[in-house]
Amino acid sequence: MRFTLDKNIDYLPADELENLQVDLLKKHLRYTLANSPFYKDKFSEKDIASISKLSDLSKFTKTSKKDLADCNSDFLSISKRDVVEYVTTSGTTGKPVSIALSKNDLDRLAYNEARSLEIADFTADDTVQITTTLDKCFMAGMAYYLGLTKIGAAVIRAGQGTPEFHWEMIKQINPTALIAVPSFLQKLGANSSSIQHQITKALCIGEPLRNADFSDNQLTKNIAEHWHLDLRSTYASTEMATAFTECQEKQGGHLLPELIILEILDVNGNEVADGELGEVTVTPLGIEAMPLVRFQTGDLARKHSKTCACGRITPRLGPIEGRLAQMIKLKGTTIYPTQIEEVLHLHPTASPYLIEIDQDENGLDSVSIILPETCTEAESNSLLIDLQAKLRVKPNLKISSISAIQKLLFRGNSRKPKKIIDNRNA
Amino acid sequence: MRFTLDKNIDYLPADELENLQVDLLKKHLRYTLANSPFYKDKFSEKDIASISKLSDLSKFTKTSKKDLADCNSDFLSISKRDVVEYVTTSGTTGKPVSIALSKNDLDRLAYNEARSLEIADFTADDTVQITTTLDKCFMAGMAYYLGLTKIGAAVIRAGQGTPEFHWEMIKQINPTALIAVPSFLQKLGANSSSIQHQITKALCIGEPLRNADFSDNQLTKNIAEHWHLDLRSTYASTEMATAFTECQEKQGGHLLPELIILEILDVNGNEVADGELGEVTVTPLGIEAMPLVRFQTGDLARKHSKTCACGRITPRLGPIEGRLAQMIKLKGTTIYPTQIEEVLHLHPTASPYLIEIDQDENGLDSVSIILPETCTEAESNSLLIDLQAKLRVKPNLKISSISAIQKLLFRGNSRKPKKIIDNRNA
Repeated sequence: MRFTLDKNIDYLPADELENLQVDLLKKHLRYTLANSPFYKDKFSEKDIASISKLSDLSKFTKTSKKDLADCNSDFLSISKRDVVEYVTTSGTTGKPVSIALSKNDLDRLAYNEARSLEIADFTADDTVQITTTLDKCFMAGMAYYLGLTKIGAAVIRAGQGTPEFHWEMIKQINPTALIAVPSFLQKLGANSSSIQHQITKALCIGEPLRNADFSDNQLTKNIAEHWHLDLRSTYASTEMATAFTECQEKQGGHLLPELIILEILDVNGNEVADGELGEVTVTPLGIEAMPLVRFQTGDLARKHSKTCACGRITPRLGPIEGRLAQMIKLKGTTIYPTQIEEVLHLHPTASPYLIEIDQDENGLDSVSIILPETCTEAESNSLLIDLQAKLRVKPNLKISSISAIQKLLFRGNSRKPKKIIDNRNA
Repeated sequence: MRFTLDKNIDYLPADELENLQVDLLKKHLRYTLANSPFYKDKFSEKDIASISKLSDLSKFTKTSKKDLADCNSDFLSISKRDVVEYVTTSGTTGKPVSIALSKNDLDRLAYNEARSLEIADFTADDTVQITTTLDKCFMAGMAYYLGLTKIGAAVIRAGQGTPEFHWEMIKQINPTALIAVPSFLQKLGANSSSIQHQITKALCIGEPLRNADFSDNQLTKNIAEHWHLDLRSTYASTEMATAFTECQEKQGGHLLPELIILEILDVNGNEVADGELGEVTVTPLGIEAMPLVRFQTGDLARKHSKTCACGRITPRLGPIEGRLAQMIKLKGTTIYPTQIEEVLHLHPTASPYLIEIDQDENGLDSVSIILPETCTEAESNSLLIDLQAKLRVKPNLKISSISAIQKLLFRGNSRKPKKIIDNRNA
């Protein structure tokens, strides 16, 4: 398989697109059946032959994060000698799960990110400072690097660092764009003082920029207070190895139809209606080393199939509104930690914070927000009022030292800060 | 220019090799003359035409680190749009200097590292954990990554981290080899406890493994106390973008003749005899974005031109014995900080340390070694005896807290620990 940029696919009529995806899906399933020890008993050539439309995929078995963790080596579908890279992803139990890539998977990753960057209007004229790491076995950093090189942009592999370090690099090399986590952009903007720069845009990862209706969320508003940037959201995960990225319309991330099949499923595993919330379930196409079929991400979002104002006919994926496993039933009301975080972002002094979810002796959920001792009483009272207004239920507030919070944020040698402590299945 | 592995070049008779290098050199100089603002007044087409043997290069002007820092943008020989990456290198004044790369330069870097890895006997069957960073705009990390991928080895981009983190990754992914700084290998080995692994070799960078006579130095002996590894040294720098790597004979790093011209010069700029100490001066061939001619690295080493026992006819570069700028005249004796470090490695409890060089009111050099307060008096007395025996002169010993030493090691936002404080030209 060769990956050459062909953007025409984004503008294909729906039926042609479906035919094309059905063909790619069958090819992917045939490869998987022939090579994956995990899938060989899960379906047959007959099942594949019976597929005539995308919804026929629903007859196939789903794959959970637990499957990938428990039977990790059964997913390897090439010889070890053909593995060119191992990356890791956070498993369900905190122990990282390794994902192998073939040379072709790496080429596919570069192609995927190049497509994503083009949708986000990054060009060969851009000089892009990467403010996330290429180390710690993260897939993402390498995807950005390879994608940027593929579109001919210039890369500055700065990696994680203090705002001071990043401003030093900005002064020295003069980038036009950043790749960053939104909350870091807020911090960087707040530290800019009066440094001259030509940065006009950022590709944002790890945290959503919009609300479910595509209006800017609080984090995006906070960033806008510090500097004027064209912010584009991109959503991906190590397992899916494919990005959903916003075009200039900022109405969800565009699906790359040659690389992934997307289903949004309800709790019973049935596809929800267009625009309804459900679990993002993906079948990444053309993966060689560890192909997956109907992988359940645990992320909750909506699919929007109406043609985008940008002209692309490809469906769009709305912002991640929560994680299935983190659903909280608080005093009869269903909430997700993301909703709590959205309120916390209204109160920048309530940082760093932690959200702790417990189950009481009656099996009922309880939620505590741990705030730093630097947060004033007035501020925490005001936060509580906002929480009650937005969620209709009130979590507990607790106070802790910043160092204790920092330590918990990176508990268990975590590579990413984990702001949510869910003790319910511990 | 296409980079495809052709190892036959290592076995060419000396005269054929020289002819081939002369051709590549002329091509490089013609490109540089036509495209580099810095070099356009430095030489002419006539100078290039007059070259018939490698030693004719001596008529060309040399390029210093100061030139590269002071006239940085004058070295850019392609349009900014064709730059695909900016890396940085530590300048003379501590302020990093940026080096631009074209797509072709990146391909050349991958080719260079693939050649280097093959000389070090790394193969497609290896799974290699990189324990140095791919961030902070270092060129090296990306060179390893691209080279490993090119030879078909599997890469684990672990990056910098604690020994505990690296052992976790080793347990999980089971690598066969490491890329590491030797002193980190010592630390990692000391932390291994009884963890099962299949690591048999390491490519070592940043610090030499051998003495000038190719016997193992103290650091290599220290590593051997903890674990049995086939250690291969590789020497390179961001400016030269080319590695000198040891084969199984461990008698210096082999020159890659299609990628670099090496001169070893005395203080007057004349080439020294084979096996004599002098300044490593390089002309990296085929570089597009920032071509250099006779770049003075400041590193001191010896060239060995006798055919290697491995069969390769290519010359070898001995271990770095010091830096020109760090030459110390102590009580009439010439020494280099590397010689002091060699003695310090005999005393592992004298770590972390700093070497401070000053000039007294009479313009004479003085040297102090700053040791941590955890180092006992008995240990520091024993160190002093060893220093006197090896150097024939005695530096001063000072005591400081570990935290103060750590702070000084990374002074001025340095990306690498700087163990030598030279106050003479400050």
